[in-house]
Amino acid sequence: MTQVTPPLLLAVDAGGTSTRSVVLGAEGHCLGYAVAGSGNPTAVGPPAAAGSVALSAAEAMRKAGVRGTRVQLVVLAMAGARSTSIAEEVRRSLGEIGIDAPALFESDLLATYFSGTYEPDGYAVVAGTGAAAIRIEGGEQVAVADALGWLLGDEGSGFWIGQRVVRAVLADLDGRAPATALTPLLLRRLDVPPAGEGADRGVDRPRITMLVQRLYAAPPVRLADFAALAFEAAGDPIADGILRDAADALARTLAAVTSPTVSGPVVLGGGILSRSPEIARRLAETAGAEEPHTVVDGAVGAAVLTLRHAGTYVDASIFQRLTTSLGRLR
Amino acid sequence: MTQVTPPLLLAVDAGGTSTRSVVLGAEGHCLGYAVAGSGNPTAVGPPAAAGSVALSAAEAMRKAGVRGTRVQLVVLAMAGARSTSIAEEVRRSLGEIGIDAPALFESDLLATYFSGTYEPDGYAVVAGTGAAAIRIEGGEQVAVADALGWLLGDEGSGFWIGQRVVRAVLADLDGRAPATALTPLLLRRLDVPPAGEGADRGVDRPRITMLVQRLYAAPPVRLADFAALAFEAAGDPIADGILRDAADALARTLAAVTSPTVSGPVVLGGGILSRSPEIARRLAETAGAEEPHTVVDGAVGAAVLTLRHAGTYVDASIFQRLTTSLGRLR
Repeated sequence: MTQVTPPLLLAVDAGGTSTRSVVLGAEGHCLGYAVAGSGNPTAVGPPAAAGSVALSAAEAMRKAGVRGTRVQLVVLAMAGARSTSIAEEVRRSLGEIGIDAPALFESDLLATYFSGTYEPDGYAVVAGTGAAAIRIEGGEQVAVADALGWLLGDEGSGFWIGQRVVRAVLADLDGRAPATALTPLLLRRLDVPPAGEGADRGVDRPRITMLVQRLYAAPPVRLADFAALAFEAAGDPIADGILRDAADALARTLAAVTSPTVSGPVVLGGGILSRSPEIARRLAETAGAEEPHTVVDGAVGAAVLTLRHAGTYVDASIFQRLTTSLGRLR
Repeated sequence: MTQVTPPLLLAVDAGGTSTRSVVLGAEGHCLGYAVAGSGNPTAVGPPAAAGSVALSAAEAMRKAGVRGTRVQLVVLAMAGARSTSIAEEVRRSLGEIGIDAPALFESDLLATYFSGTYEPDGYAVVAGTGAAAIRIEGGEQVAVADALGWLLGDEGSGFWIGQRVVRAVLADLDGRAPATALTPLLLRRLDVPPAGEGADRGVDRPRITMLVQRLYAAPPVRLADFAALAFEAAGDPIADGILRDAADALARTLAAVTSPTVSGPVVLGGGILSRSPEIARRLAETAGAEEPHTVVDGAVGAAVLTLRHAGTYVDASIFQRLTTSLGRLR
């Protein structure tokens, strides 16, 4: 007697900080879930990104108790996947864990959107390490603003905020700008001893040199790690000013993609938006939406996109099943 | 009968764009002068920087008609020379062209100052690729502000301006900011075809992608190349705003090193200050000086520092001899 085993799908949400894999059935039941390291090929390089994909996928399958041969389709939500080298790396890495199903790539921003809603028209704004806004019509991403990376854009992102935090501290230490509560926070974070009482600010060069050496020793994008200090220093005029400027920048980015014909939901993703209800409300207003939907990552949306590619129409009840069954696994 | 050949000195001004070598006598007569490529070890790496030093030195000696063995002292004005590896690289490169005299390193900012004056007290502001201000007392650099590099400081520098130019263009193209005259200038500069009439700004993604790919293909610091567009677009409100912000930033940097006891000359160096009389005047006012002295590079100052190390007191007449005799060679 042959037991029929229904086909399974693998959804991967490859982000800059971590990568999430979900094993699910074609009706939206999530069976396995696991997290690995960064899956952003631009941030860590294609081999490391592909490695994170395979690691999280293997672990999600182990938890679901299934083998790679049962996976019939893989959909990856990944920034920068246009590069052919990452697609090849990912397919090879998946092959090594026994998955030889077709692997399709989707926009990470679209996965964020569908993590908050199944509605076909609306907006998503992401502000994590990077920043971007998209408009979705008929389930497709039809406009995007920013998403230009730390050097050329990402205005209002974690990098953008973190770089301003660090610059404000250095300008404080060398006397170019007012003192700020960010300074002792950053010094402690980087293990640089604080200035003594009555130290002459303008000639505090050894402390500046220590900070600068430590900061240049890491890749530029790691300045995003210091965005958290702007929230910790709430009430400090410099820190508050940086966050206000970030909100303005993100509102401009969202405004660039809004259309009078789309008022739909605004889904917000990324670490900056999840920790700032003020910025989140501001963005909902910008799009004329009532309440923002804040999501923690793009895992649900990656699963939505995977179901869609597998021919499943995702309505309210399937979306509900997806979020509930995935929620139980996390 | 033995002919006595007087000892010679070699002064090197190693900058981010080019490196200048001057062969001179101990009374300040310049005998040979030559220019080579970048001598900034941070920008091009120690081997390339040391190579530029040796290339310009060899050519300056050839023009002066002297051999390396006659050089008794080398003084190099170089940013980032604290790294021991560049000092070793430079000494080895000089050895390969027959110079085994002691090689001393001095601040490139101090060389800029002494390119404009022999007075022992005053200020220098440099805004080229990077930006910094120093105060000089008794001939020594006693305070410095900024000089923190493109990622963490250099506010008002060529990089700082160039990055704002590029960001303004990208924000124009994707609809986050008003149209600016900088856009057609940058598109032409990077060989990206301009948008057609009536193109929808918000969805002009292919043009944005081309720009972004070309800009990320070069090292970040090369964004300084686009600072010139802010001057070309004079009259455009966005371009004028960028230059106004740069002037504010440089004035803050200078103000951070000013002292009530020093009103002395203000020497201005670097490509940004040489092309902006408005910013130059603003900076002279900041320090309470009457007129700024603008210098084209640090070659004269490197020679002043070299004479000083050789025991020559540089007064008005020696400074005059230096500038006149070097001027004839350029």
